[in-house]
Amino acid sequence: MAAIPKDTLQFPAESRKFLDSYLPPAGQSLSNQSLYPFTTITFATSLDSQLSLSPGTQTVLSGHQSKAMTHYLRSRHDAILIGVGTAIADNPGLNCRIEGVGGYGSAGLEGQPRPIIIDPHARWEFTEENKIFELARDGKGRTPYIITTLVNPPAERAALLNRAGGKYITLVPTDSSSKKLDWKDILKALMAERLNSIMIEGGAGVINALLAPEYFSVISSVIITIAPVWLGEGGVAVLPPRQNHGTAVPVARLRHVKWHPFGEDVVLCGNFKE
Amino acid sequence: MAAIPKDTLQFPAESRKFLDSYLPPAGQSLSNQSLYPFTTITFATSLDSQLSLSPGTQTVLSGHQSKAMTHYLRSRHDAILIGVGTAIADNPGLNCRIEGVGGYGSAGLEGQPRPIIIDPHARWEFTEENKIFELARDGKGRTPYIITTLVNPPAERAALLNRAGGKYITLVPTDSSSKKLDWKDILKALMAERLNSIMIEGGAGVINALLAPEYFSVISSVIITIAPVWLGEGGVAVLPPRQNHGTAVPVARLRHVKWHPFGEDVVLCGNFKE
Repeated sequence: MAAIPKDTLQFPAESRKFLDSYLPPAGQSLSNQSLYPFTTITFATSLDSQLSLSPGTQTVLSGHQSKAMTHYLRSRHDAILIGVGTAIADNPGLNCRIEGVGGYGSAGLEGQPRPIIIDPHARWEFTEENKIFELARDGKGRTPYIITTLVNPPAERAALLNRAGGKYITLVPTDSSSKKLDWKDILKALMAERLNSIMIEGGAGVINALLAPEYFSVISSVIITIAPVWLGEGGVAVLPPRQNHGTAVPVARLRHVKWHPFGEDVVLCGNFKE
Repeated sequence: MAAIPKDTLQFPAESRKFLDSYLPPAGQSLSNQSLYPFTTITFATSLDSQLSLSPGTQTVLSGHQSKAMTHYLRSRHDAILIGVGTAIADNPGLNCRIEGVGGYGSAGLEGQPRPIIIDPHARWEFTEENKIFELARDGKGRTPYIITTLVNPPAERAALLNRAGGKYITLVPTDSSSKKLDWKDILKALMAERLNSIMIEGGAGVINALLAPEYFSVISSVIITIAPVWLGEGGVAVLPPRQNHGTAVPVARLRHVKWHPFGEDVVLCGNFKE
């Protein structure tokens, strides 16, 4: 058995049960007919629906159990996805530290998800000093795939990525006038990379864009941790835009809901299926 | 036994248990030394911390179990308190419809809380057609006490109130420059009226004002229902102001927390005690 690093996390079997029906089937591939990966949205907020106290800061909201849960969820997905803002602000590791996955008790990279960064204009100026590349060199994580709209992303960074085992993936916006990527196109492109399950972690821009009726059919699962704290006015909020400004109707209601008290926090699982 | 109206609500004993330690002691008066009543803040929000889709509208967020819970909580308090905005927008009944209280299975008004409206400038232009007065005439609720800063509140309305068994209570702001009522003064005044327990129901202005460190010592309990729905940008939010604009710290963390899944919703109980 490979060495187990000190920062390895445990997530006990009895805590895994309540999540099971909201996760991609373990050890089973999706049917070939599926156009989209199994897509899970997950994040942690305060009672006032905020992810952090201010843009670019990381706010510790939830307890250590919730952190272990996040890493367990990562182990159950082929890829984890964040927006470029989070990549720039947090210098995240985006690996999985649950005991037993590659680098944390096993050889190889089994159980390590592929980090995906949505970076349409290649704003993320990473170097090999970034945590994500360090972890990859140490055999504790995978190198990122970066989704961009640039046909020619910055050559030096592209070379660094390629050497480390990652890549830029160029997507052309379907709607050429708005020049915005469509989330369905992003998910299809990830499926084409044989990433059959995607865990979307944030930040607020990504989550607010996805909590829209047009994407309910491609969201398989939503797993939210809520901490019993109010951050107060001025933080970074999960607060999706209204679709119809004339008629005031709720943006979204979760279905097949399960609430699971978890230490001081609660975990809410649900989806948008009929 | 008195007649039981059709809109009587049931709240089963097994559902009452989890709330018990967050409620005023039943059938027991507070110690005479207490300056303040037992004060419970309670409200229902969406996942994005909103009470309603827009100012002045009532949004049904939570299920029928939560409605029955609200009425059970009302039966456990001497008074229920709302801000003038809610009184004007909702024309609320502010009574208790739990089976067994006065008007709902019992004679008299036992178990019916006193409605309190915070209306500093006497903006609420009620008549005896308002629901709250109708219910009082039908023996299904009490007449309101209205807290105002006006030494001479409108005479006609004051007379109507008095005839029905309610009254205006004039409070002079301690801080004469801001002319704003201090919540501690309000609670003390209610205690002087022998209202030993107060349930504060909203609206957002009242709740956001009370979720401030200066009032934690006088808040006995917080009971929140969260529905698995996002209302989206533009609603009426529970989002307390930050105290220190320089240092970004969370406004408040609940302690002694208990989460209770309740139908599709979750109920969070907690307080700010050391």
